[in-house]
Amino acid sequence: MEQINNIQVVPCTSSNYLKPFRVHYSQNGTKKSWDFMRTHDSVSILIFNTTSQCFILVKQFRPAVYMCEWEKNQSTQAKEKGTEDTPVPEEEEKGETENHTHLPPASAGVTYELCAGLVDKPDLSLEEIARQEVLEECGYDVPLSKLRRITSYRSGVGVTGAKQTIFYAEVSDENCVGEGGGEPLEGELIEVVKVPLQEAMKFAYDENIPKTMGVIFSFIWFHSNVSPKFKISTNV
Amino acid sequence: MEQINNIQVVPCTSSNYLKPFRVHYSQNGTKKSWDFMRTHDSVSILIFNTTSQCFILVKQFRPAVYMCEWEKNQSTQAKEKGTEDTPVPEEEEKGETENHTHLPPASAGVTYELCAGLVDKPDLSLEEIARQEVLEECGYDVPLSKLRRITSYRSGVGVTGAKQTIFYAEVSDENCVGEGGGEPLEGELIEVVKVPLQEAMKFAYDENIPKTMGVIFSFIWFHSNVSPKFKISTNV
Repeated sequence: MEQINNIQVVPCTSSNYLKPFRVHYSQNGTKKSWDFMRTHDSVSILIFNTTSQCFILVKQFRPAVYMCEWEKNQSTQAKEKGTEDTPVPEEEEKGETENHTHLPPASAGVTYELCAGLVDKPDLSLEEIARQEVLEECGYDVPLSKLRRITSYRSGVGVTGAKQTIFYAEVSDENCVGEGGGEPLEGELIEVVKVPLQEAMKFAYDENIPKTMGVIFSFIWFHSNVSPKFKISTNV
Repeated sequence: MEQINNIQVVPCTSSNYLKPFRVHYSQNGTKKSWDFMRTHDSVSILIFNTTSQCFILVKQFRPAVYMCEWEKNQSTQAKEKGTEDTPVPEEEEKGETENHTHLPPASAGVTYELCAGLVDKPDLSLEEIARQEVLEECGYDVPLSKLRRITSYRSGVGVTGAKQTIFYAEVSDENCVGEGGGEPLEGELIEVVKVPLQEAMKFAYDENIPKTMGVIFSFIWFHSNVSPKFKISTNV
């Protein structure tokens, strides 16, 4: 799917995206502190196309996932060589790491996810943001009235504390008005993927297919709450 | 549950826990970069006590969640006053914020979660780490053979890329050997909570109960895969 190369990792002293803060507080009289990051809440959308009886997911290269796999790869190689150095430089002077010979394939960083986006437009409702994401990423124009709220939860509790609200959107081929793929100007390079209903539960539990918990949860939610009306066995 | 006060937020120039890195790479010939953080993979465990027919969860104060709610609170107040300043200081000289008059209650930062822990002991298997967490946090001594792997997924794709593996552990009162509560020396202050099987699905979808997606997913997974053998309706 992707050609990934020229990988260089450098320590990042100042990031526009990741800004740690520290909170000092007292809990039951004991002084404590915790480092956290601010981030936006988010929405994610389970999309089901009734024409093709398929779920619509997005697939993209995730640098953070790739680096995670790259690091495991390095650790394994270091163990085999008997040199267990930390593979990603922490505070090194040269601040640069490149290893063309042992790069995992780009597919190691590709994940399957629900269509999703940040809640970063204060004037829009969650439903309106969800609608925009479905259009931009997957090419479906969904009326707001077709967005059904499933539930919400904390998407992170240790670092960000952000809340994610998950929606269900039933679409048909008639709602398909574009190719999706995200906003190239924002650097998004998203592939729209169809997962047939009948293969969904196998897909959900196949650990060889890298995915988010949102995909697994929403497929199993659909199976319990929606699929009976389609009268198709999803083979749990 | 908790007394939280003396809250002070300061920018954090160097954190031992949150260290941003930057990766430069080429994707299909286009140069890109991405800021990410290293973290450990993790395990989480759905615990079901067959004696009391209850799920065993943990409940704790999460500073990151609290700060998220605090910030929303501040934004709302600023809107009401007509002053929409960024509530948490970004690069301010004084680097300190305190607002005793408008603090949300501590309960705003308390979340219900699955028993979980980081995979930070290279010599232990995922099952062994899961077993330790169940003992430390919830007080149950579970034989390794009783830990059933449910599946794995990426717990974060934007910032960390880490993988989480989720297990199911069936325990009885006989396995209960302690009170749990976490490691006070590590600053953990965890309350063990029981959720009766019959209330589980209502609990899962009640958005007034702050929780992680792991709780919702695993309750619905249990309903589909395990509860039939207990012959109890879980009222989906």
